[in-house]
Parts: sequence; structure tokens; C-alpha cells
Amino acid sequence: MDIALRRGFIWPSFEIYGGVSGFYDFGPLGSLLKNKIIQKWREYYVLGEGFFEVDSPAVTPEEVLKASGHVNHFVDAMTECQKCGAAFRVADVVREVTGRDVEGMSKGEMEQFMKKHGVRCPDCNGELGHVFDFNAIFRTTIGPGTQRVGYLRPETAQGIFIDFKRLQRHARGRLPFGAVQIGRGYRNEISPRQGIIRLREFTMAEAEVFFDPEDPHHPKFSDVAGEKFRLWLAVDQEKGRERLNEVTAEQAVDGKLVCNELMAYYIALTKRFLGDIGIPKGAVRFRQQTPGQRAHYSAETWDAEVLTERFGWVEVAGLAYRTDYDLTRHAEASGEDLAVFSADKKRKVICHVVEPSYGIDRPLYCLLEHAFAQERGRAYLRLKKDMAPIEVGVFPLLNRDGLPEKAEVVYEGLRREGFMAEYDESGSIGRRYARADEVGTPYCVTIDHRTLEDETATIRDRDTAKQVRAEIKELPRLLRSLLSGEMPFEMAGEAVKSKSERP
Amino acid sequence: MDIALRRGFIWPSFEIYGGVSGFYDFGPLGSLLKNKIIQKWREYYVLGEGFFEVDSPAVTPEEVLKASGHVNHFVDAMTECQKCGAAFRVADVVREVTGRDVEGMSKGEMEQFMKKHGVRCPDCNGELGHVFDFNAIFRTTIGPGTQRVGYLRPETAQGIFIDFKRLQRHARGRLPFGAVQIGRGYRNEISPRQGIIRLREFTMAEAEVFFDPEDPHHPKFSDVAGEKFRLWLAVDQEKGRERLNEVTAEQAVDGKLVCNELMAYYIALTKRFLGDIGIPKGAVRFRQQTPGQRAHYSAETWDAEVLTERFGWVEVAGLAYRTDYDLTRHAEASGEDLAVFSADKKRKVICHVVEPSYGIDRPLYCLLEHAFAQERGRAYLRLKKDMAPIEVGVFPLLNRDGLPEKAEVVYEGLRREGFMAEYDESGSIGRRYARADEVGTPYCVTIDHRTLEDETATIRDRDTAKQVRAEIKELPRLLRSLLSGEMPFEMAGEAVKSKSERP
Repeated sequence: MDIALRRGFIWPSFEIYGGVSGFYDFGPLGSLLKNKIIQKWREYYVLGEGFFEVDSPAVTPEEVLKASGHVNHFVDAMTECQKCGAAFRVADVVREVTGRDVEGMSKGEMEQFMKKHGVRCPDCNGELGHVFDFNAIFRTTIGPGTQRVGYLRPETAQGIFIDFKRLQRHARGRLPFGAVQIGRGYRNEISPRQGIIRLREFTMAEAEVFFDPEDPHHPKFSDVAGEKFRLWLAVDQEKGRERLNEVTAEQAVDGKLVCNELMAYYIALTKRFLGDIGIPKGAVRFRQQTPGQRAHYSAETWDAEVLTERFGWVEVAGLAYRTDYDLTRHAEASGEDLAVFSADKKRKVICHVVEPSYGIDRPLYCLLEHAFAQERGRAYLRLKKDMAPIEVGVFPLLNRDGLPEKAEVVYEGLRREGFMAEYDESGSIGRRYARADEVGTPYCVTIDHRTLEDETATIRDRDTAKQVRAEIKELPRLLRSLLSGEMPFEMAGEAVKSKSERP
Repeated sequence: MDIALRRGFIWPSFEIYGGVSGFYDFGPLGSLLKNKIIQKWREYYVLGEGFFEVDSPAVTPEEVLKASGHVNHFVDAMTECQKCGAAFRVADVVREVTGRDVEGMSKGEMEQFMKKHGVRCPDCNGELGHVFDFNAIFRTTIGPGTQRVGYLRPETAQGIFIDFKRLQRHARGRLPFGAVQIGRGYRNEISPRQGIIRLREFTMAEAEVFFDPEDPHHPKFSDVAGEKFRLWLAVDQEKGRERLNEVTAEQAVDGKLVCNELMAYYIALTKRFLGDIGIPKGAVRFRQQTPGQRAHYSAETWDAEVLTERFGWVEVAGLAYRTDYDLTRHAEASGEDLAVFSADKKRKVICHVVEPSYGIDRPLYCLLEHAFAQERGRAYLRLKKDMAPIEVGVFPLLNRDGLPEKAEVVYEGLRREGFMAEYDESGSIGRRYARADEVGTPYCVTIDHRTLEDETATIRDRDTAKQVRAEIKELPRLLRSLLSGEMPFEMAGEAVKSKSERP
């Protein structure tokens, strides 16, 4: 977190005004990394799955969220300290004090649990009052006067559901088809205390997969049938067992561990995606929510969770079987017929929905934590090369003899070729390598006296600190191959024998 | 607009609930196009200018927008119909009824103008009442209770200003430096009636360029010194003259037509950017706001305007000289010292700011309108090839003989190579070409019987309807070169002599 703050990944929002909990900014490196995660997500869901992206407003009129059930059901159990008046989300204050999870319990059960375990106000040790519901949607007013109530969307999904008719026409009647949205979601948390893990405003990437309930098959299921993942079943959680079932997607379907083939497919895809942005496979599990934990619209939910040092298991994505809940509710509330013809054109059906819904901020945090490495006295971010915010550093070896001028030319050239390059001339070359390592820059190009003679420069590899020497005019091609992982570093040029600059 | 609606570019938001004015969705093609505009903007400002991107919340605590002046000054002159009670933004209702512009007038002048020109309620012809101020910021509450007022940001810029200290450290003290933010902005319009041109929630891309007021120079000014643009000076507008000054960036600085070199540089860059996304040069002018029209923070503002058929001249970007207004106000309100050392380290200065601020939705609309063409009975979108939402269509010539299966393989291959490809097998081949033309798809690949023999396919060019024949394994390379404009179409393969499929 120190590097994240100091080097421009994550900053507390409104910091000069004392900050507001539940809000974080992404600084220059955080924004680059966030954009790369979003780009990768689009590669999976827009390019790969062929899903349609839509982009709808965050401000949402009341009708929509009444129909979706959020106005009534999107609530957090809350309690207030009887002494200092501080407000708490019950699940958070219980976890903070006892390390236990009361999510999914009834309000009465929560009160009993708190009494039994002596949960008191963490701020002043006062007694906590009754548990009551707080609606976690931000409320506002559209236009002048107060007649038109609006909310900030708690999920991007509703913007997709209400566009269903147009989307279905765009898909020319094909089923299944999917639509995605990437954007801000809002949850007016009571008193968020977990940094970037519990935000009031967050970025989410959601996919809604519409299918005929009699045909819950994915045309490319065979591509993932053998993919293994680890499931923590609700029944095991309820019995207090930590047992994980490691199964293939096919086994999960055949053994009826998951509701249908589409769910198994997207669990597998989620596992691949998380691996592809750089989260180690061993740190990922899929936890089935117990019936009490599930959102009001879901018949089955799997949370993709990543193990972190700081926050334990963190939910980074949720895969919900939303059935025909949303389309039925919107059809009723709007009076529009949202039924469509089945593939054989013989039946009319309300589509069912499987929803893979990803956070963007939380995976980013998990990824940073897992990438952080300390070795032989140096700290570096072992980010996947294609995910690094800065792709290449360009340094003059010394601050004279025309080296900075030459390095600037190389830097500008790489930028023009589309590389996120950074120029740095301050401090010793070792110091500059260390700074680049710290933010995960995979390659550094150094301009030295020999460059001025023969138009070659050294390229240094972040992970091994090894160096090769290559022609400047070859740099774009070499760096492209190195960053994509197509070329092993040793093939990029003539090995450099360096003593002083190795760590 | 018919194509935009029908083919999935722009949809009214919340349509099945009757819609809410001032809100639009981007459908599948609109989202792809929007993402391309944003990507191009990043190429200019993040890669090209080397500016730091930040990403901060839209929900903003009251302190920030009190300090920035928005709580007091971000107001719209409003009036209500005395008969039916409808609310109007004065400038809009006057423009709608008389075609004239009252922006910048005092409230008294507006009332006189309306009386003189007989402006009445466009809905019921009732009399319009007094003109009064309406604060156009969406208001909400952060956390439980009502104690913490929050607003939805009217601009992304404030998120940059309050991060100034961290950004300046990230820039290691270098001046000038810039920061950008791309995200949603909000303006609680009274009664928006201009479709996508006046939105209550919009996407904006803003750059804040921080500089020493004694040194308002851009290191790369020479790159744009000779670039010509057309200025409409405030003094000419005040005298009712439509005269445009066509000058180079250098002449604009030397003739003191613009406040400083940075302003001229970013006017030139804006002109290039708009041309680069496909807006014709002749349709762009830069209008200097008159003192009455300027926002409270600006000492000089230039609006980049694009001529459209439907809405006349539309403002798509604003370039404001914000001076030290924002940093000074935030320093006072927060108590933080936001002064920095000048380049020579001898003086401390509060940086001045030039702000190029772009809408994303409006240029997108302008671009669509300008791309629309009708020729010899066919309608097509003459989008720049690198901006087209669908890059390549893949069609089987006939719906049998194994052609669809082969076409699907080619389609999947192109998707895997990163092309936004679309597969279409419904209707005649002519009909499919027409559908592709209508959404601006630059190239269509058709699989025919010869493909099954020799692994070649035809590529058709949108603008000329000409065709060439090329090897399937060469398609990724050829399409890449064609889309980037590096390769003339005739070089892409062996010319095809076709009679029937020409328009």
C-alpha cells in the first residue's frame, strides 16, 4: 500500500479535505493499470464472447429500481452506537470485532450474535442499538422541483435489462446472446472501513447472458470442459467445512454442482480471466452463496474470491443465475412484452439470465498485492508484462555528453509507436532501475556512449536484471514481441556483460 | 437519426418506461464508436502529450464544489409557465421560439428580451414567469442520515485539481505538466429538449495543463506553429459580425488573438483531433466566448464548434484559461499549500491552468451526421476506417454447401486476431453488403465456392464497392494495413470482376 500510494496507483479521494471513506482515486499508474484490466475484460467478453456492449446512465429514475426490487431489497443491516452515535454496517462491525461472518442472518439473529459475542462500538466501546435496514442506494432528484426521484444505479445490469428488446433485435433473434456494460456502480455504504475493498463508488464490468431456459448450453462449452476450478459449496459452508471441490467444468455440470452449463462455462472463463491479468491460480476459489446471502434476484450465486494478505478472501466477481426475474419484473412494470421466440420459433419464452459480474477495483488491488515481491533487497512488482502500466523506461546512462538528448529522441519514437514509455534522467542509473522495478516496468532501455557510435542501446529485463544490446531501430519490434511474451529475453539481442548494474 | 436508433448507435434511455429527457444510451455500435473516440483521445493526450490520467469519483462532497465556486455559480437561468407549470431553461426556450441566443445576458435583460419577442410557453402558449437561478448540480447524501451533502460532479476537472499535490510530485516538479480525466459529468438540466446535444449525464475528457504564468510555453509548439484554424472573436460577435479569422497558431499568438502559446497549441491540437476522428476541417470553428458567457473560473474561453444540419453549430470542446482560480480557491478552503517552485527554483508560484475540455457524446453525434452519405440509392456511413465500430463483415456467399461453416471459421480467426468482426448469413449477399455499408463497416470478406478449393476469399471495399481476392491466411495482415490506411485497396489482392454485386 505504501508503494501504491507513493507511486501513484491508489490515492484517497478528496485527501486535502480530509478524505471521505469509501472513495478512492486511481492515480496515473493506477489508471493505466485499470484501463488494461478493462481492455483485457473486453477481449474476453466483447471480442471473445461476441457480446454487445451498451453504455447507459448511472442516474436512474425510480420506476426502474422499484421494478428491479432494489428500492425494497437493496438494504444493509445497520446499527448505531447508543453512546457516540456512530453508524455501522452490522456485518462489517462484527467482522472487525470478532472476525466472524453474519451476512445472511436475520436481523434478530444478528442482534443475538452481537449480544453473545459482546460486540460493542469499536470507536468508543458504547453499546450498539437495534439492527435495522438502511437502503444503500444514493438518492437524487432529476430536474427542478422534487417530483422526479432518481437513484445512482447499484449495478450496471439494469441498464441492459431495460434495453432487452432493442438488444434482442440487434442479435436478430439469436439465443443465447449476451450484453455487457462497464461503468460506475454505487452503494451508499454506512461506514466503510476496508479501504479500496468496500467502495461507495466503484467500477464494474457486467455481462448478462440471455438464454432459453430449456436450452442452457454454451456453443463453445467444449473449449472449457476440461478446465479445473475449486468450488466451496454452500452445504459445506453451512456445516462449517472448509472443504474445496476441485472439478472440471464438465464435472461441475454432470455432478449438478452448478445450476447449468452456462454457469460452469462462465466460472471457467472467470478463472482464466483472473489468471490472465496475473492473479495466481492457487489464490482463487469459487464460493457458493448460502440461500440467506443471495441477492433477491438470484437463484444461485458463485463468488469468485481471491486470497489476500491484508483482507483475507476477497470477492472479485459474482456469477448469479438471475432466472427470468428481471425481465419478468420489467415486463410487468412497464407493460412491454419482453417474451421472445425460442430458437425453433415454436414457443415464446421469457429469457433466463446468467450474469458474470466483475468488480474492477478489487481485482486491481488483489493483483497489486500478489505482484509485490521483495528479493535480495530490491522491491518490485512482478506484474504480467502485458499488464504493466509503464511498458518501457528510457534512460540516459549519464546526464551529459548528449546522452539525454539522444534518450529523449528514443523515448519520443517509442511513444509515437504506441508504447507507454517513461523518460527518467534523475539520480544514478541503479536508482532509476529500482524505481522502474518498483512500479513493475518490464523493460528499461539505456542510452550510453556506445549508442552515439552505433545506434544500439541496452534493454534490461525487470525480473532477472539481465541485459542485452540491440539496435535502436529494432526496439519497437523487439519490445512488442517481449511484452506479448512471444520472444524469450535472451533472443532480443546480444548479451551484455555487466557487473555494476546487477542487483 | 433513424439509422442511429435502428442500428444500435444511440437509444433513448429508460425507453420502456417512457424515457427521461436528457438521458441517452449507447447501443452496441455506439459503444464501440465511443470507445474508439476515447482511445484516440488518449493517443493524443496520454501517449502524445504524456499527461497523467487520473480517475476519481463522480460523487463529490460539498466542500470541494463550494471551494470551486460551483455551488454558487453553476446555475441556469430558469422560468416557469404561469399556466401549465412547465419549467424551462431560458436560453433554450428563447432559442426554440426565436432562434436567438440570450446566453450571457442578465436575468433582467432576459425578461425584457422575452417580453419584446413575445416568447411564451411552447407547450401551452401560457405566459412565462420571472427568470430565476436554478443550481444545475445533482444533489445527494453520502452515508446514512442527511448530515453529509454530496453532489454529482459537474466536471471531472475538480478531481484533478484536488490531487494537484500528488500529481506534481509524480511529475517530479517539472513544469508545465498535464493531467487528464475521462469520465461522467452531470448537469441537472431543467428541461432538455435537444436530444443527445444537451444531456444530463455525459462523458467528458478533460485535460488540465499546469504551468508557470511567467512561462506559458509548450515545448513542442513548433510542431503546430503552422497549423491553421478559424477563430470567431468575441469582439466580432458583440458587433454582430460573422467574420472568421483564419490564422496559424503562431499568428494567433503573435497577434495576441489568444491569451498565450499554450492556448494556441491546444486549439491546434483540438483541430487535429477532430479531423482525426473524421469531422471535416471546413465544419470546425473556434468561437471565443464573450465575457458574459464565460464560466466563473475562466479568463478566456474558446469553444470548438462543429456545424451540423440538425442543431446548427454545436460546441464539442471548450478551451478555458482557468488562471490560478481553482488552485487558489482549494488552497484557501483546504488550508493546504498548493504553491510550487518555478523551474529555476527561485520563485514559488501557484500554477496557472489552460484546460482543453472535450465532450465525447457530442463529437460522436457530429461525426455520425457528417459520415452519413447517400449515393446512387445506397445509404452508407463514410466513417474513417480506423474509427468504424465493426471493422470487417464475414459472409458466406450462400447458405449451404459448407460455406457458412467455413465463414464461421474465418470469422472466429479474425476475432482471435483482435478484429471487431461480424458474421452475417441472413438475406441476399447484396442485402448484407447494404447492411454493412449502413453502419460504416469498411471491409467485407465473402466466402464462396472457390474458397473451399483454394483458401481465398473476396474483400469488398465499402466506399467503392470494388472487390479483390486474397488468401485467407493473409487476411489479418491485409486488413490491418487497410484499416490503418497504409495500403491502398487495389494492393490488397487480385482484382475481382464482378457485375451483379456492384451497386
